[in-house]
Amino acid sequence: MKVSPLAPAAFPDLPVIDGVRFAATAAGVRYKDRPDVMLAELAAGTSVAGVFTRSATRSAPVLDCQAKLGTGSTDRAAILVNSGNSNAFTGSAGEQSVEAICTTVANVMGLDAARVFTASTGVIGERLPHDRIIAKVENLNDALTDTGIADAARAIMTTDTFAKGASAKVDIDGQTVTIAGIAKGSGMIAPDMATMLVYIFTDALIAEAPLQALVGTLTETTFNCITVDSDTSTSDSLMIAATGKSGVDVTESAGFTKALREVMLDLAHQVVRDGEGATKFVEVRVTGAATDAEARTVGLSVANSPLVKTAIAGEDPNWGRIVMAVGKSGAQADRDKLAIRFGDILVAENGWVAESYTEEAGATYMKNDTIVINVDLGIAGGLGTVWTCDLTHGYITINADYRS
Amino acid sequence: MKVSPLAPAAFPDLPVIDGVRFAATAAGVRYKDRPDVMLAELAAGTSVAGVFTRSATRSAPVLDCQAKLGTGSTDRAAILVNSGNSNAFTGSAGEQSVEAICTTVANVMGLDAARVFTASTGVIGERLPHDRIIAKVENLNDALTDTGIADAARAIMTTDTFAKGASAKVDIDGQTVTIAGIAKGSGMIAPDMATMLVYIFTDALIAEAPLQALVGTLTETTFNCITVDSDTSTSDSLMIAATGKSGVDVTESAGFTKALREVMLDLAHQVVRDGEGATKFVEVRVTGAATDAEARTVGLSVANSPLVKTAIAGEDPNWGRIVMAVGKSGAQADRDKLAIRFGDILVAENGWVAESYTEEAGATYMKNDTIVINVDLGIAGGLGTVWTCDLTHGYITINADYRS
Repeated sequence: MKVSPLAPAAFPDLPVIDGVRFAATAAGVRYKDRPDVMLAELAAGTSVAGVFTRSATRSAPVLDCQAKLGTGSTDRAAILVNSGNSNAFTGSAGEQSVEAICTTVANVMGLDAARVFTASTGVIGERLPHDRIIAKVENLNDALTDTGIADAARAIMTTDTFAKGASAKVDIDGQTVTIAGIAKGSGMIAPDMATMLVYIFTDALIAEAPLQALVGTLTETTFNCITVDSDTSTSDSLMIAATGKSGVDVTESAGFTKALREVMLDLAHQVVRDGEGATKFVEVRVTGAATDAEARTVGLSVANSPLVKTAIAGEDPNWGRIVMAVGKSGAQADRDKLAIRFGDILVAENGWVAESYTEEAGATYMKNDTIVINVDLGIAGGLGTVWTCDLTHGYITINADYRS
Repeated sequence: MKVSPLAPAAFPDLPVIDGVRFAATAAGVRYKDRPDVMLAELAAGTSVAGVFTRSATRSAPVLDCQAKLGTGSTDRAAILVNSGNSNAFTGSAGEQSVEAICTTVANVMGLDAARVFTASTGVIGERLPHDRIIAKVENLNDALTDTGIADAARAIMTTDTFAKGASAKVDIDGQTVTIAGIAKGSGMIAPDMATMLVYIFTDALIAEAPLQALVGTLTETTFNCITVDSDTSTSDSLMIAATGKSGVDVTESAGFTKALREVMLDLAHQVVRDGEGATKFVEVRVTGAATDAEARTVGLSVANSPLVKTAIAGEDPNWGRIVMAVGKSGAQADRDKLAIRFGDILVAENGWVAESYTEEAGATYMKNDTIVINVDLGIAGGLGTVWTCDLTHGYITINADYRS
């Protein structure tokens, strides 16, 4: 598959996180001759937290991870992820697969099965051939290395056209804390964690409960503000592991919060940039809403509108469709207070097209790779930003024949 | 534009409705050399009711119609509709256009401007060239004929590939009541009346208030249960005119209610059959929901899912995407109680694929023009049905270059 035109130039050079080791291999779960399983080992002392899809039909691995978190444990732990099969809607067989994998990883690595977290991404409704994964666990364990994160990022890809990574170093009172994360996802992407798997590692010192609270809050304005196709997955998982190896307590650190948010937002943007068929990266900034929540509602209504997304694909400055999407959102809006800008170009205000606006200016702006749509509702101070991509023939091609 | 493969064989032979006359003409609002304005005259004694978009950015004609209804008047009335320009988001100029048209129609036809209802459909945000319409009102008035409904249906089309009409005759205590309706719409179609214009005429005798209540109720299970692309228009309008000329009071008639619902559902289905780029007509029947409202929520979640719609376009029996769409709907669902059928073919139950299901059976079923997806949630007795079409390259082609 051709790499998205919106992809970064290269996979970033991610720093080693003290206390984390990675391995990846080709187990043949579904794909042939490419890595499709990754294993991460988390040293003793590591806090683990996670955010998961709210789907009512979430997968067996998601349910298992949710059951295992919240204990406050910092025992040695492991994360095993496969691509190609999501182990979702597989009845009791799904739970058996999770248990079989966790037991094997625990036995081979010598840790408690309650500290083994798994995730699966790919086709829904087909039994996970977990024997193929189990057969590789010893090899994976033997291959663990602290520089393996890039291979891990590649192993969790499905329809992704590029591997996704981001990192940050933050200085806290003269000491350095390091964060590195990887993600996958390109379709079935919508708020509530979309079809994404995200794994973030840091050497920061923080207990599970404050780490859970922090990642939950930051997800709201990062991964829960992106959408590719408004579809939400049964498998979405974000996990964060803080090994504590830096010795720097970040429990109330604004600097750490800011750096972590940047890593999360970077990964979220990369998911949008790999949106199936995407040719434009679109930022919808909503201001002047009654509340922040209503701003997000309006932003998502614009970002999920097929008519807005196809107009952007066609480089058509069809701002009337933005008016339509604002109007249908259900949020408080007033036609005559609404202002719309493409980047800095004032397009519409006072209930109509702006006097200064020209179709030529709009059409020229639409040729950019990155489109910023500013919607000011003029009602109060609520604001929010949402990111999406355009809707193209490429999306149809990929999804009208994905499984067969 | 090629006629939709899902179109009926021909426009139906609609009966004359005593008390209603029609005319249509080419005013050149936007389109060249095709009828784009229709006028309907409603005789004295006619009750008029309507249902309109709930968009916060609804158009000037919609606001005007809403302001004029509810008086209980049965004075002589008129409906004038243009295609090509929606007169939406046109500031105070939009209201001036509506007033200019209503005043002219009132003067030419000799009736009260408060009894002139207008609608406009087409591009948003461009000033309506109402002078072109006003210049044709005398000609339209002179051309009124009781057999002009088919021409009226053609004059209100925008991206429609076929004109839409439906009718019914109902026997009430040995007397006949006749109903005839027309509609337009093919994109920007979603519940809350979508981008549709619907006009229904009957010789039934019924006051405005009960007529309004009836049409409001029936809209919930007809026009508010169809979706093409989840986008809701700023112009959607359904109006019904009951001339009373049959002399048959239908105020509490179950037979009339049934016949009217059939006409509305027929027109709603025709809108879906003309969905932009549609190659499949899809019915999503949801049973076993906690409530009827939740059944509709699940139905719309499935019907609006781009991943479900592209799978259907690709004739891929990808039922995992239906599980996904049920899960993301927000309605109460239980993975292990869910059952999915393609037509009569049991696909999934008890949280997994059904033992009897074969991929071949699913793939063969998907080749049909009409796809019925049955989702049983197994929770309680709530049920609802939603109609949609598939999402194809045709939709992208039409909408990535509609305005230019």
